[in-house]
Amino acid sequence: MTIKIDISASGQIYPALIGVGLLKQLPVILDEYAPAYRYAVISDDQVGPLYATAVLERCRSAGKKVDLHSFPAGEVSKTRKSWSKLTDDLLDAGHGRDSCIIAVGGGVTGDLAAFVAATFLRGVPLIQVPTSYLAMIDAAIGGKAGVDTRAGKNLVGAFHPPKCVIADPDVLSTLPSDERSGGLVEAFKHGAILDAAYYDDLRADTELLLDADPVAAKAAVAASIRLKGQVVTQDELEGGYRQILNFGHTLGHALEAASGYSLSHGAAVAAGMVMEAELGEHLRVTESGTSKTLSSGLAGLGLRLESLSQVDPEAVMSFLSSDKKRRSGRSRYVLLRRIGEVENTEGWSREVPDLLVQEVIEDLS
Amino acid sequence: MTIKIDISASGQIYPALIGVGLLKQLPVILDEYAPAYRYAVISDDQVGPLYATAVLERCRSAGKKVDLHSFPAGEVSKTRKSWSKLTDDLLDAGHGRDSCIIAVGGGVTGDLAAFVAATFLRGVPLIQVPTSYLAMIDAAIGGKAGVDTRAGKNLVGAFHPPKCVIADPDVLSTLPSDERSGGLVEAFKHGAILDAAYYDDLRADTELLLDADPVAAKAAVAASIRLKGQVVTQDELEGGYRQILNFGHTLGHALEAASGYSLSHGAAVAAGMVMEAELGEHLRVTESGTSKTLSSGLAGLGLRLESLSQVDPEAVMSFLSSDKKRRSGRSRYVLLRRIGEVENTEGWSREVPDLLVQEVIEDLS
Repeated sequence: MTIKIDISASGQIYPALIGVGLLKQLPVILDEYAPAYRYAVISDDQVGPLYATAVLERCRSAGKKVDLHSFPAGEVSKTRKSWSKLTDDLLDAGHGRDSCIIAVGGGVTGDLAAFVAATFLRGVPLIQVPTSYLAMIDAAIGGKAGVDTRAGKNLVGAFHPPKCVIADPDVLSTLPSDERSGGLVEAFKHGAILDAAYYDDLRADTELLLDADPVAAKAAVAASIRLKGQVVTQDELEGGYRQILNFGHTLGHALEAASGYSLSHGAAVAAGMVMEAELGEHLRVTESGTSKTLSSGLAGLGLRLESLSQVDPEAVMSFLSSDKKRRSGRSRYVLLRRIGEVENTEGWSREVPDLLVQEVIEDLS
Repeated sequence: MTIKIDISASGQIYPALIGVGLLKQLPVILDEYAPAYRYAVISDDQVGPLYATAVLERCRSAGKKVDLHSFPAGEVSKTRKSWSKLTDDLLDAGHGRDSCIIAVGGGVTGDLAAFVAATFLRGVPLIQVPTSYLAMIDAAIGGKAGVDTRAGKNLVGAFHPPKCVIADPDVLSTLPSDERSGGLVEAFKHGAILDAAYYDDLRADTELLLDADPVAAKAAVAASIRLKGQVVTQDELEGGYRQILNFGHTLGHALEAASGYSLSHGAAVAAGMVMEAELGEHLRVTESGTSKTLSSGLAGLGLRLESLSQVDPEAVMSFLSSDKKRRSGRSRYVLLRRIGEVENTEGWSREVPDLLVQEVIEDLS
């Protein structure tokens, strides 16, 4: 059975549909949520052959006008240049305001295609078909669209909610195992900040989830979408409550950058979560033992943390300080009270003394 | 006295303020409508020295953090490349989500700076300080942001309403006379589609307006902003009613393109208005004599129409047909009933037989 979770964004409500085998029903879903004169599928050259061509065939058999616009896979493609090229391709192919964009792929595809949809002829409808854990539970929910610049990730973009998100756990079977682990880090984060019972479920089902067992995957994806959906529904434009989703990410991003991106995003955020829990414990905000619980839970994901020990603490501090400058002198941390609950005293995040941050980072080596 | 007209967009309301000498009060207006940690003024290298530097000094004396980001003047700068460069400049200068962008300039600056504001860190506040008739009465009202691509104008963009529009007729005195005439074409258009009495006022005041007389300019700018504001408030996303603003533009754009842009935008739209009125008269939709009335009214603006006679009718038809293809086979025209009133039978625009269009175009030569 298909699970339907309503997400509210920009005064509209759009559904996230989660179901095993759901992609086979795509044409019917399009008719219901995004009827259009033409469809443009955007996908990368790895996911494209696996799923986008099947999407194309299914749409064509249902009598729809649809074409494929592909780009080279990877974060290196999440640029203004790829966005420009895709936009030009759509114009050359004669797409107009009555076209709808279907993003088929992981987080990069979702963010990039959403930015194309947000800006093509000042905005056309978008359907998100996430094909990774990360895209299903994180990137596709919340309406964020964007690309990277030389100064950092996601620095240019828009909010452009899709008409519908279609999450079919069947596609996870082809996902490389590194990407499964990495994506599940965000699921653990959702449990850590919002739902202790879900956190326990994730620990119990870690093996099944890593194997992309459709039943376990469907349950986790639905739980995470529901949790993230509640957060972004309450605070779509990142003013306040939505900050809690940054748990683990202030240090995570810094670790990732300081490792020269040899540390994967998932591994960096996992380490960031453990370290930010340590920060909280030092400050007596976070229940003692929380960072250990996180550490052992996340260990089950088998993340590749080798390069963590080679990260230069000074490089981490320097990244934090330049990031801080960009945020007008404020580097903020989301702190847990315990697994499943976030601190909310001076807003949903707080500043933490540099010396303490440095101490926790130096404990790494 | 300052005239304040509320424009509604995306569920928010923002004011357009019209007043002689208003720019001197900029810091106070910023405090009221867009308090921010820092301000980034975006301007081109022609308007910059005239007004942006004065804006900078005034803000600095009022204790505000503000810097200037400039680009080469002209439509050639309304590109994704300029947008990328401005975005990178803002990032390099350390601007963050708590910065506000102030667009000081004509239509190109307004559209380009608005697209920067719409996409910088997924959107920051924007203040529009239009310095031309066209920007005051047209470009700055309605929240459109965008740049051109090789396939055409404004094909990439967003809707990003400003926090406030500040129209100070004093700045019109430095505007080149060609640009005054060109901008006033849009004022005549507002009269033609919505308000016969305003159309008559424009005819009576044409000389004063061309001289940038502050009193006449303030009245016309306020009237046009009020009229355009009512239209976009009713129909922000171009679904229906807003189409009436395209009167004169279907043929105008085609003439402009077919002339290889030797015809100015204003002159092309003026010719387009007269020709679209002729179309309407042929179809017995538009009151007989309307195109003559328009033609003599617009003649007062002294537009440079020399190159109109050299435009190749075939090139116009070919542009219309490629434009049509992009709009999925529909090329639509807004037709007048008479000066001050638009036809609304099959929606606010209608298709017109190619042969008739061709006839009207061939009458040119």
